[in-house]
Formats: sequence, C-alpha cells, structure tokens
Amino acid sequence: MKLGIVGLGRMGGNIARRLMDADHECVVFDANPEAVKAVAADGAEGCDSLEALVERLPAPRAIWLMLPAGEITEGTIDRLGTLLEQGDTVIEGGNAYFKDDVRRSHRLREKGLHYVDVGVSGGVWGRERGYCLMIGGEKSVVEGLDPIFHTLAPGRGDIETTPGRENFDERAEIGYLHCGPVGAGHFVKMVHNGIEYGMMQAYAEGFDILRNRDKEELPEDERYDLNLADIAEVWRRGSVISSWLLDLTSIALTEDHELSEFSGQVSDSGEGRWTIEAAIEEAVPVNVLSSALYTRFRSRTDNTYGEKLLSAMRKQFGGHAEASGD
Amino acid sequence: MKLGIVGLGRMGGNIARRLMDADHECVVFDANPEAVKAVAADGAEGCDSLEALVERLPAPRAIWLMLPAGEITEGTIDRLGTLLEQGDTVIEGGNAYFKDDVRRSHRLREKGLHYVDVGVSGGVWGRERGYCLMIGGEKSVVEGLDPIFHTLAPGRGDIETTPGRENFDERAEIGYLHCGPVGAGHFVKMVHNGIEYGMMQAYAEGFDILRNRDKEELPEDERYDLNLADIAEVWRRGSVISSWLLDLTSIALTEDHELSEFSGQVSDSGEGRWTIEAAIEEAVPVNVLSSALYTRFRSRTDNTYGEKLLSAMRKQFGGHAEASGD
Amino acid sequence: MKLGIVGLGRMGGNIARRLMDADHECVVFDANPEAVKAVAADGAEGCDSLEALVERLPAPRAIWLMLPAGEITEGTIDRLGTLLEQGDTVIEGGNAYFKDDVRRSHRLREKGLHYVDVGVSGGVWGRERGYCLMIGGEKSVVEGLDPIFHTLAPGRGDIETTPGRENFDERAEIGYLHCGPVGAGHFVKMVHNGIEYGMMQAYAEGFDILRNRDKEELPEDERYDLNLADIAEVWRRGSVISSWLLDLTSIALTEDHELSEFSGQVSDSGEGRWTIEAAIEEAVPVNVLSSALYTRFRSRTDNTYGEKLLSAMRKQFGGHAEASGD
Amino acid sequence: MKLGIVGLGRMGGNIARRLMDADHECVVFDANPEAVKAVAADGAEGCDSLEALVERLPAPRAIWLMLPAGEITEGTIDRLGTLLEQGDTVIEGGNAYFKDDVRRSHRLREKGLHYVDVGVSGGVWGRERGYCLMIGGEKSVVEGLDPIFHTLAPGRGDIETTPGRENFDERAEIGYLHCGPVGAGHFVKMVHNGIEYGMMQAYAEGFDILRNRDKEELPEDERYDLNLADIAEVWRRGSVISSWLLDLTSIALTEDHELSEFSGQVSDSGEGRWTIEAAIEEAVPVNVLSSALYTRFRSRTDNTYGEKLLSAMRKQFGGHAEASGD
Repeated sequence: MKLGIVGLGRMGGNIARRLMDADHECVVFDANPEAVKAVAADGAEGCDSLEALVERLPAPRAIWLMLPAGEITEGTIDRLGTLLEQGDTVIEGGNAYFKDDVRRSHRLREKGLHYVDVGVSGGVWGRERGYCLMIGGEKSVVEGLDPIFHTLAPGRGDIETTPGRENFDERAEIGYLHCGPVGAGHFVKMVHNGIEYGMMQAYAEGFDILRNRDKEELPEDERYDLNLADIAEVWRRGSVISSWLLDLTSIALTEDHELSEFSGQVSDSGEGRWTIEAAIEEAVPVNVLSSALYTRFRSRTDNTYGEKLLSAMRKQFGGHAEASGD
Repeated sequence: MKLGIVGLGRMGGNIARRLMDADHECVVFDANPEAVKAVAADGAEGCDSLEALVERLPAPRAIWLMLPAGEITEGTIDRLGTLLEQGDTVIEGGNAYFKDDVRRSHRLREKGLHYVDVGVSGGVWGRERGYCLMIGGEKSVVEGLDPIFHTLAPGRGDIETTPGRENFDERAEIGYLHCGPVGAGHFVKMVHNGIEYGMMQAYAEGFDILRNRDKEELPEDERYDLNLADIAEVWRRGSVISSWLLDLTSIALTEDHELSEFSGQVSDSGEGRWTIEAAIEEAVPVNVLSSALYTRFRSRTDNTYGEKLLSAMRKQFGGHAEASGD
Repeated sequence: MKLGIVGLGRMGGNIARRLMDADHECVVFDANPEAVKAVAADGAEGCDSLEALVERLPAPRAIWLMLPAGEITEGTIDRLGTLLEQGDTVIEGGNAYFKDDVRRSHRLREKGLHYVDVGVSGGVWGRERGYCLMIGGEKSVVEGLDPIFHTLAPGRGDIETTPGRENFDERAEIGYLHCGPVGAGHFVKMVHNGIEYGMMQAYAEGFDILRNRDKEELPEDERYDLNLADIAEVWRRGSVISSWLLDLTSIALTEDHELSEFSGQVSDSGEGRWTIEAAIEEAVPVNVLSSALYTRFRSRTDNTYGEKLLSAMRKQFGGHAEASGD
Repeated sequence: MKLGIVGLGRMGGNIARRLMDADHECVVFDANPEAVKAVAADGAEGCDSLEALVERLPAPRAIWLMLPAGEITEGTIDRLGTLLEQGDTVIEGGNAYFKDDVRRSHRLREKGLHYVDVGVSGGVWGRERGYCLMIGGEKSVVEGLDPIFHTLAPGRGDIETTPGRENFDERAEIGYLHCGPVGAGHFVKMVHNGIEYGMMQAYAEGFDILRNRDKEELPEDERYDLNLADIAEVWRRGSVISSWLLDLTSIALTEDHELSEFSGQVSDSGEGRWTIEAAIEEAVPVNVLSSALYTRFRSRTDNTYGEKLLSAMRKQFGGHAEASGD
C-alpha cells in the first residue's frame, strides 16, 4: 500500500522503515527537514509540506499521524480536514485521548472523511520486534488498511498458541486488533498503559524491599545483602512473575544494579492519568493503578506541602519539631 | 492516692503535676536527676533509684511507667518483677505494643503482680486539657486505680452529651475507659493513632490540592491563589470536617501558611505500623491507614530505589533517560 | 435583603427559613408546588414560575439556585440568562463542578450578569447550626451579598479563637469566606468533601479493626470484644482525633453499635470524584482521598470482574478453584 | 542423588517425579498412605513413617519437606531434630516465613544439623516447565545439593540471554539461585509472591475498566463493548505488558470471558502478608502491594463494618438513609 506518514520522530520513522522493509510505499513529512531527509534516505518519498504530501498520495488517501499528543495533532487534523477529499482516512497513531478521537471523528465525518485511531505499543524495540496495535474505527475502513496493520504487527512469532482460539479473531494472534468504533483503539491502549504503570510499580516495590533488607536497624540474622541482578534473572525462568518488563529489569540490573545513572524522577504521560479518570467515570476501584501514578508524581518533587503540614500538626499537638511522638 | 511514677519526660512529668494539682501524692524516679529535681520542685517525692521508689510506697503499690517503648520499659518491668510484692500493680502508660503487654502480664502474674496498660492521648496539651485514657487490665485492679484515672481524664467539659448514653459506661464521658483485659488499652490507643495518621493525611492531601491550584500549567481561569489559613479557619465552623486537628492546622497556618520552618520529613511511631499488622492479622482492608503510613516513610527519603528502577525500565523499553513517553 | 431562591429541597428550604428568621425577605420557586407552599407557610413569597420570581424581585436581582447538580441547574441558568437584566446576579449554591461555574460565568458575563458560586456545608444540621460557606466571584458582587452570607453562616459561637488571626479575614471566623474568583468557592468546597471522604474512611477502617478483634482465628489472649460506642465516646474527650464526625459516630453507635439498619452500600457524589481529577491535573499524590472514593465504589457492587480474574489466574497457575496457594 | 521427601501433595509429588525422571532416587513419606502409594508407583521408595524414611537414607542425609506452612512443618522439623545425625540436612521447601527459618536453623545447628530453605515457584506447571528455586543456607551445604536443584530448575530453555551476564552467577540463568544465608531463599520467594499479587491486581483493575466500558450511564459514543479475550491475546505480542500471567489470562478468557465459574472470592497466603510486614520493618512504601492484598481481603466478605459506619455517619450529617448527598 501507499501510506502518508506525518511525524517522523523515533516512532514515526521506524514505522515507515518497517513498512518499507515489507515493500509498502511511504510518503512522509515532518516539520523538521532533517527528519524527512533521514527517512527519505531509507527509501521514503520525502515532502516539504503537508500540502505536498496530500498531493502525492492517490485517492482514497490514508495518512498516518505520529505526532506528540495535544495541540500539534489537533492542528494537523484541522488542516487535513481542509486538504483531504471525501473518502480519505486520517489515522491517528499517537497517544491521543479517546474522547478527542470521538470528537475529531465527528468533525471529519461531516466532510466525508474517515478517522481511525491506533494505539501503538512497542517503543524502541518495535521496528525489530513489531508493534502491538490496538485499532478503533469503522469496520470497512479498518479492513481496508489491513496490509499496513499486518506488516507493522509482530506476527505469531514463537509465542505459544492459546488453546481454543479457533473461533476468535485471528488478527489478535498476529499482534493487532480492531477493538471497536472510533476511540476504542486508544481506549484499549490507554488501559494497557495503566496496567503497565501498575506492573512496573509492583516490581519497583518488590525490588525496593529486597534492596533495603540490608539495613542496619534490622536484626542481624534477618538482614540480607541480596544480588538483585541474579534475582531478576532467576525469576525469568519458571516463576509466576516472568514478563517482558522483568527481562528488561534483568538487563538493567546486570548493567548496573546500583542504577546510579538514574535520579528516580519518573515521568508520566496522559494515558496513566486518563485511565484513572475512565475508572472513576465507571465507578471501578483502581487502587493499584492510582498508587502507581501517584508514586510518579511524588518522585518528581521535594517534600510536599502536605508533608510539611503533617509536621506542623505534629508540632502543634506533640510539641516537637519534626521528631517522633504522640 | 499515692502513686509511683517512673519516667519524667514531658508526658510523665505533666501526669505527675496534674495528679498533684488534685492532691494525689506522687513518688517519682527518672534516670536523669534533673528531671527528678524539676518534678520534686512541684511537690513530688523524688527518688534516686527504682529501689528507693519501691521502698517509699505503701503496699499494695501502684507504679506508673512512662518510658520510651522498647528495651528501657522491658528492663524496668523485669526489675520491678523482682522488687515488688504480691498484690502490687505495674501500670504501663507508654506506647507499648499490646502483644508485649500480654506477654509481660503473664510473667508478672506468676509472681502475683498485676499489670495494667494505659494508652494515653493528649500530648503537650494534656496537663491543661486532660488526657484521654484507654485502659486494659483486670476489672478489680482497674477499678482500684479509678481515682488516678478520673483525675487525669479531661472530664465532661462543655462537650455536648451524646443522646442515649444513660445505659453506657459513664467513664467514657469523662474521658477514660476500661476497654478490656490486658492489652486492650494499648490496642485501642494503637488504633486511635492509626486513625490519627489517616485523618492527618486526609487534611494533608486536601491542603496540598488547594496549595497547588496556582500552578502555571493550569488553564488561567481555573487557577486559584488560595488563602489556606482562612480556609482552615472557615472550615472550623459548621463544616463536616471540623476537628481538633483542624483547629491545630488553623493555628499553624495562621502562624506561617508557607510552613517554611518544616522540612516535611515526618516521623512515625510503632502504633501506626502495628495498626497495619493488626489489620492484616484480621484480614481487614486498610488502604487509607496504610497509605498514610507510607507517605511518612517516603517523606524521609530521597528518591527510592524503586523509583530508579521505574526509570531504568522506561529507558529499556522507551530508549530515553528519565523523559516522558512509552 | 430580598433574595430569590430557586430549589426548595431540604437545603434550599432551610436556607430560606434561616434567612427569614433574620428578617431577610425570600421570593421562592420550585418545580414542585408543594415545596413552594411549605416555605411560603413559613413566610416566603411563593411563585409558580421562574418568570414570576424574576418579576417580583427588584433590580439588581440576586437569585440563589439550590438545585441538583447537572442538567437542571444548567437549564435554569440558561433561562435566567434570558430573563435577567444587566447587573443582576446568579448565585449557584448547589454542588456544581467549578469548571462549570467558570464556563457559565463567561456566558452570563456577556449579558452583563454576575455569577457567584457558593459551596455550602452543613447538611441537615445547617438551619440550626448555620452553614459553612465557601464563596467564589467578583469582589464587589460578593461584598454586596454580605448580609445574606453573614446570616447563613454559623457565627463565632463558642469556638476558641485562633491566636494571631487579627490580620486575617474576619469572615472566616464567622464561618464564611470569599475564596477567590468564580469557581473558587466550589473548588474549596470540593476539596472539603474530598477531605471528608478521607476522614470518614480513616474512622471506618479504624473501627473495622476494633470490631474484628474478636475473631476466633486470633490467639485467645490477643482477642478483644470491644464496646465501640464507649470507645467513640471516650475519644471525644482530650484525644487527638476528636471531631464532629466522631461526635456523630458516637451518636450512631450509641443508637445501635451493630449498625444493623445499614447495608454498607455507600453513595458518592461528584465532589469526591472531581477532587481526584483536580489532584491529577496538579500532579499531587492523593492516595488516601482516592482510596476513600474507591471503597465507596466497591461497597456498591458484588464481587468485581477484576476479582474473578484474580481467581481465574490463580486457577490457571495453581490448579485450584478459588482455594489458597501459589 | 538420593533424597528424602516428606509431604506428597501436588507440589511434593511432582518434585519427586521430576527428580526421578532425571535418575535421582527418592525415599518418600506422607501421612496419607495413598499419596505414598501414588508416588511409589512412579518409582519412589515409599515409607510408612518418618523414622523409616530416615533409616533408609544414607548419611549424610538430605530430607526435603514439602508440607503446609505452620504447625505441621514445625512439628516435623522438631521430630527430625531428634531423628537425624550430625551433618544431615533439612530442606524446607514449603512456604515458610523466613523468620521461622532463622529460628529453626538455630535450633538444628545446636545438634550439628544443617538447614536449607527453598522458595519454589511454578505451581502445577512445574513438573513440565521446571521450578524456579530461591535458596537460602550455608554455601557448602547448598552446593552439595546442587544436583537436586539443577534438575528441578527449568533450565535455560529458549529464553533470550541477558547481555553482560558473563560475570554473574550462572545458576540464575538455569532457574535456581543461592540467595544468601538461611531465610534468604524464603525471603526472596516471599517478595516474589508480593510482586505477583501486585501484578495480578494491575491486570485485574485494567480488565475491570475494559469490562465496565459498556455501562449505560456513559455517553453513548464513549461506550465500548470490548472483546476481552482478544485484547488479552493481542497484548501477548509486542506489547510492554506481555507476561506469563497475561498468557494465563488469555487462556482463561478464551475459555470463558464471563468468568462465570468464579465467585471472585480470592484467597491470600502468608507470603503476601509477610511482604507487607517486611516492607514496614524496612520503612519502604508499598502502596501497590498492600492494595493488592486488601482487595483480596475485601473480596471474601460482604459489606464491611467500616462501610456500614460510613453510611451511618452520612445518615447523621445528611439525614438520609444510604442515599446520595453531602
């Protein structure tokens, strides 16, 4: 297929390359001409404007946006709304909020344009390992893009087959899924990231307990100086908690089990926050997913105002400045 | 009554003074002679050893221990076990673990000695305001000490009477309660402190939200620069969340709403921790009490090892050093 | 002053009555004629339509809305937007979302109308005890309504004065506060309710631990059959956790410490949810406030799908149907 | 090697079989003669008493206990303390508390006996897949048992090698690890289970959000009826959250995505609880691991007393029986 790609950052560039490796044609644009040049060097047709990109694609067009969430995506979709023709499709592959997908698709629909949202997991490993794709949109439009999705997905690989899947959607076993109408793709990807935060935090807390078992205030024969790299490695084999995140943990701890390169200030993106809001809308209790998010908030600040207030109260009733008591 | 008091820190000294104000006699001892001298100056009979204190008390003796939890209390009870005579009573007024009370009482009982545990709330305000007392021990022994407890308790004050209490224990309305057998007093005090942590944290989080409403990244007309001292004060009147802790918060914020004197590193004592352990023993879910405790743990450290591990994982799958994305 | 009041439920009706007790005049309307009749019987001027109410008020008008949050309030404000004249003021006294206040005020401002938002705490006790008022809006407009707010507020009462408040806003000591521009009143009230959820949950967890201390699986001498009504009562006196909520707890437990009239299915309103959303917007960690909300979610359902999934996983790796082990 | 095995439940029996498949000899005993008969039928030497088992093993003996945690294990170790001879080794392979390991090892050491603790992960899949083993004990004793551990472990399999492990303990890559002195094996296994609870809960919450996205009260175009079996399956490929638990989730949801066979009452074992206690000892914040445990507690009860108390308070201040409001 011939696909337009707008936004050639790490993700967008590698998506283009993985498609071209499988003989799809990519017409690409990025605000940064260097990014265009780099992907063009690998075989893409580079453009110097959104208009040029639209022009070079045969109708009905399919244009994949891989831009930072927020204003840039919004603005680009607005402009495409005026540049595209009836029957064309905008594929939003960034980390959009599913409610924005719904809103945008309404606007494009008025002009006869289609909207497909794709949640993409895979990060820097995706070019090689393939991308897990969660897709929302109209059935026929999504099916029309199948060659693209099929190529980007990881494929069956040597992952064991789940028994009884004969009557289920085969695409899931290849690594992509049409989840439902517009927004459903980003919704599923959003929850995926929420789970990711929770799992990461579960490991983080566990390794924190292991690491702190050497504290002097503990009884001497209940104190252990543990080799965390070996522990991560042994858990990769036959244990209940083996996972890709654990594989990565083992790599990281083998490199430097002190993790001294890291400050521990952890970013969070929209998905983790939206997951909590979605849960609240549905009245679903999500203590673990929330705590994982809050740990990241706390990791980026010094002592909070709230903590100072705890100290202030303790001084008031206990008469001591930040020492133990009551 | 004539009461022995061992341990003349802020709490022990003020307990002696409140008792003497009501014409009880106090025979006192502390490892620090200056502390003995200070309380003796206010009318107590000072002793220079535990032996001397035991000697000067008429049998059956009652000795109130107000010592730091842990080894010092344990050692003093051991020594009293050899110094006291059948029928004497040890009153443990510190912050002991209720399981230690049970264990110690078994040991003393073998020698014909009684054990009473008293959880004391009130802090530096207690001398003036009175102490809320939660008592565990044998019925007859606790009743024998009633004059002491009655004096230490705050009294009815001008607190509104709870309707329907005619058939309940009157002592609760005076501010002291015989909660049950040995350990029950400290058990109830322990849960009291667990609740205290949770309440404090509820206020802390709320004021943190208020305080951060002025952040530049928020939409301009949804941003507020709030006067936290005034808000604490207004909530003291007619609101659902009025409390003594809120009164103290209002005092603290009126003094300095920046709380600039505080680092925000918050101590925790045994009770908060034991409360969680008790809940786990009983299989009672205690998300709020646990979170309140963990906030204190986190407040006393720099970024944790767990947080560094989150960053390390993110670098592995996202290819970026401590920046955003998935 | 002469005030229009729209919405005569429990809160609206009592607000009218408290105002009339202080010789304010109230012109009232409710969709339910019976509600109008009842308040009219206590001295208000009853109206049978919003138009009639507007007509009977002298310009510049002030109309207090006390309606269920959501569509009804929205619709009424829209209609008032067409009925009122430049210089008139809409007072939104319900539990509106502060972002809705901001949005609505923009719309009314275009027509020269003022908007004031008032968060009201006090519940059924308010008529007698007074209402704690948190107010947002333009300074001059809020000051013009001062007689109303002053009357509704609880007054200084016999609550101890906070030292050092001489240079602070006196109104806070009377029980009402101009918190900031439009939305600030409901924002502060929202956080108030968030704190309320957290405090309530702290007590709930604590009493749950006390209550379950009688479980047979616990060691016999660490098991206590505690009188929870007495414990709530004793904590009202001199303890760190005394509060109005504790007073109410004592009343409830004295009536029936089994709480057998209650199912334990606990409602939550918008404020508790919005508080979490506001915290997430500000990146403030709020583990306690979130947990309190989630407990309410969980209280209203049977076992969740998530819990079933836990069982399903355990069966897969442990080979047992909902029994213990790993 | 020749190994004694005591306790022939699902785990103990399969451990014997996996060892015999690799030509180790097993002398086995269980209180239930049927269990002995079954394993003997597969080649083990069956015994009808602990004494007989000890007798048939050549010194220095190694006896692997695979019994339910608690009294039975304690009693068996006591009896072995009298039956065994200097230089013999007790291997505790059950889910013991690491502090019990330490205590027991002290007792056995006085008699010249060795103690090795082994945390075993793998469940019903272990016989085929191998068991992940976390081992604590003296270096020389653990090394003497290496043939046993090597056989039980899963082996390298086709799991990708972690780069840079050349200088690390090779055994970790085979699936077993000598973690440290006595207790360290069960400590690491305990934390493993803590992490397991957290990860399971992260998935559970995520799937709960997906499942509830079809609720009628949501806006119609933000509502999705998602195929959870397909979603679990697609996440197995290329996504950040792929894991063995997710593989199992996919199997379970493919069988029945309604999970109608499950009540959702989820057991918890000692390890999850002890993990929290260990974290508290170390002052490590573990919000996620705690919440995961509490969800299980809550899953096994009807509405809690705490929840009833919330309703009772709401009735007191809001005047309504379990309905909405403030």
